[in-house]
Amino acid sequence: MKSSNKIFSTADVVESVFYKSFNQCDFDKMRKVWADDEVVCVHPGSAAIVGYAAVLRSWQHILSNAQLPDIQVSVIKRTISETLAVHLVEEHIETGKQNAVVLATNVYQKYDSGWLMVEHHGSVIHSQTEPHTLQ
Amino acid sequence: MKSSNKIFSTADVVESVFYKSFNQCDFDKMRKVWADDEVVCVHPGSAAIVGYAAVLRSWQHILSNAQLPDIQVSVIKRTISETLAVHLVEEHIETGKQNAVVLATNVYQKYDSGWLMVEHHGSVIHSQTEPHTLQ
Repeated sequence: MKSSNKIFSTADVVESVFYKSFNQCDFDKMRKVWADDEVVCVHPGSAAIVGYAAVLRSWQHILSNAQLPDIQVSVIKRTISETLAVHLVEEHIETGKQNAVVLATNVYQKYDSGWLMVEHHGSVIHSQTEPHTLQ
Repeated sequence: MKSSNKIFSTADVVESVFYKSFNQCDFDKMRKVWADDEVVCVHPGSAAIVGYAAVLRSWQHILSNAQLPDIQVSVIKRTISETLAVHLVEEHIETGKQNAVVLATNVYQKYDSGWLMVEHHGSVIHSQTEPHTLQ
């Protein structure tokens, strides 16, 4: 774990910086929130990306191609232990071109240096009403 | 927390029973793996469902309408603490009609009675290759 220069005192603080990075398309902020570890990221509709370098490359691509989106977030559920926090978050994303509602499970882990993001799993809501099926 | 009759010694055991329930369309097993608590569930493409009763109603609908699917699962990443475990799992689902690959973040919590599921967040993989965007 090489993240000694990244100091966030709570999972909520990490989450706040993560979404600021998003809103401001600020890749430097994004680099600071992730643990330098075997982190995992699932962008909506995509396969899992494993490892700090690959995850950060995907965010660099997203943030360099986004049009300063407006993102409003609300936490649906926090599940916490002393060293792990799981937040289910609803993201309302407006990009000018189109709007989307994304559900994200964000996982934060406490290291010696403080809390960092270790997983982000996003999925777009296509339907609020249709019956659930296996797929 | 009313789950004193549900005893699973590890998160892996809960996960195993969860996927057996899936494979066998066995709703009784599904009822046993979830905590009687403010659990949350996101089925692929859908909004979040909050609370034991609503989550179980959604699974009852799914399992009563499924054609005994074949589900193969592999764990991509386990993130654990003493009382919380987060598994990112790849599910290969064959229903006869169609196949799908679903990524699921499964969250398990340790109660006095043992480990139980508190969150399941699934998303279908639509693309392995296309560049990631905000939506």
